[in-house]
Amino acid sequence: MKEKEEFSKQLADRQKQVEQLICGYLPREKTAQKTLLEAMCYSVENGGKRIRPILLLESYRMFGGSEDRLSALVAPFCAAIEMIHSYSLVHDDLPAMDNDRYRRGKLTTHAAYGEAMGILAGDGLLNAAYETALLASGDEKDNTRILKALRILARKAGAYGMVGGQTVDVELTGKPLTAEQLSFIYRLKTSALLEASFMVGAILAGADDAEVLAMEQAATDVGLAFQIQDDILDETGNEQTLGKPVHSDAKNQKTTYVALFGLTQAQEKVSELSNRAKQTLQKQKGDSAFLSELIDWLVNREY
Amino acid sequence: MKEKEEFSKQLADRQKQVEQLICGYLPREKTAQKTLLEAMCYSVENGGKRIRPILLLESYRMFGGSEDRLSALVAPFCAAIEMIHSYSLVHDDLPAMDNDRYRRGKLTTHAAYGEAMGILAGDGLLNAAYETALLASGDEKDNTRILKALRILARKAGAYGMVGGQTVDVELTGKPLTAEQLSFIYRLKTSALLEASFMVGAILAGADDAEVLAMEQAATDVGLAFQIQDDILDETGNEQTLGKPVHSDAKNQKTTYVALFGLTQAQEKVSELSNRAKQTLQKQKGDSAFLSELIDWLVNREY
Repeated sequence: MKEKEEFSKQLADRQKQVEQLICGYLPREKTAQKTLLEAMCYSVENGGKRIRPILLLESYRMFGGSEDRLSALVAPFCAAIEMIHSYSLVHDDLPAMDNDRYRRGKLTTHAAYGEAMGILAGDGLLNAAYETALLASGDEKDNTRILKALRILARKAGAYGMVGGQTVDVELTGKPLTAEQLSFIYRLKTSALLEASFMVGAILAGADDAEVLAMEQAATDVGLAFQIQDDILDETGNEQTLGKPVHSDAKNQKTTYVALFGLTQAQEKVSELSNRAKQTLQKQKGDSAFLSELIDWLVNREY
Repeated sequence: MKEKEEFSKQLADRQKQVEQLICGYLPREKTAQKTLLEAMCYSVENGGKRIRPILLLESYRMFGGSEDRLSALVAPFCAAIEMIHSYSLVHDDLPAMDNDRYRRGKLTTHAAYGEAMGILAGDGLLNAAYETALLASGDEKDNTRILKALRILARKAGAYGMVGGQTVDVELTGKPLTAEQLSFIYRLKTSALLEASFMVGAILAGADDAEVLAMEQAATDVGLAFQIQDDILDETGNEQTLGKPVHSDAKNQKTTYVALFGLTQAQEKVSELSNRAKQTLQKQKGDSAFLSELIDWLVNREY
């Protein structure tokens, strides 16, 4: 119990830290395009859990990255990955996509600012992610790492990563999926950005290729476990704790892991994947304690 | 007349060259997200004039950039800037934006693939632009140039560049504009990416800061001249030569340079701006002949 409280405090501290980082990079200059800048800030400042920048930061720390280099080298990437996550939600909520007017109890961006501004704010955020990551600076050795990290970030966010996953999800909604198709969607839609977080943190800290690859594998597992837990909560969760309707997958004719394999096997899969991810982290140099607790928290959450 | 033919041939050669470059970078792997990849390719392969990559390439050449480094260092940026241009058209054509079903006589991306895929193909292309530019490679000195070029590209494409211009254009359509607001929109919406083209080419060739700044100024002028010429053609052009309806600005209640200042002053402004741009180029080291002819062609076009 004491440990759990301790972790909650550490997590809250990290969330506060990365939120301050991110907000520092959001455009604030009030020029003619101020509606766009407001809509971009609105989209990011909606109180997300900030999982991705925290994973990035803690991966950097686990591989012994220096705290001195944090603000010049790592913070821009933390902000960038959260901007990419935010833009994907903004576009996902659009009428032609999921058509959601509320997210976390607040109006979605297009509901608050109009559909054209929803499209442009998403575009602006995706572009701002690269503008921000490109603020990372250092010496010539750092430049090589920065470029490597940028390449991973861009690949994982794109057609062979997150955007690809969104596309297949959109195309196949309402159609029965095979287990293979479902894993493909989960991996690209959710794991890809988590993979980028772990890998970018490791690269910036100077991890070698084998270490970066191990972090990718761990993040793949975490993402899949997270999505399967999502499926479980939709089946078993409490509407009030979740803050969103349950059984929505069945209503929307979405194939889920639970529908394909049943509740028991789904729960076993979550344990198996998260344990494997934690083992992978434990094998790395550095202290993986906080990240392991974070993984447990992510996959055992009830909301 | 002979010179004009010579220039047309040179331009056609360049267009062919950059199209081959760009097409080489378009994603082709036929995986589960193949509809997305098809929609992305469809958007880029619609027969544009390829102005931006040509300006980038010729700016690189003017500053003495080596032909040997072209494919490793410059080609990825040429493809990237055309992808950014293409994504902006795809999103601009969406129902919530300009709601255009045809572009250059072909169905727009969302008209051909559906609105959700139009949004995602645009997102995929913007992201692919960075994935592609990040393929640029070289030694440690090149890395510094690559990062500098990426920063310019990202800034000019974003909220303080092209996306910002789109936003103000959307917000102010149908409202009377001042000359200052109109210039602001033209500069961000059109000049920004031309500035990126000239600046990135110069940076990759090793131009110094003063030279890069001069290229930015030249591109600002070219972009403004180009947009004012657009306004002139909407007033005086031949519908068949143009391939689109004339007097559409008046119908859409768009403030234009011609509406604000009259035809004569608009034509004088185009000459003044394009002459100043050519003078700026002539002051740089290297041969500006082809670029000067290209500027004349851009601002004197009848379509």
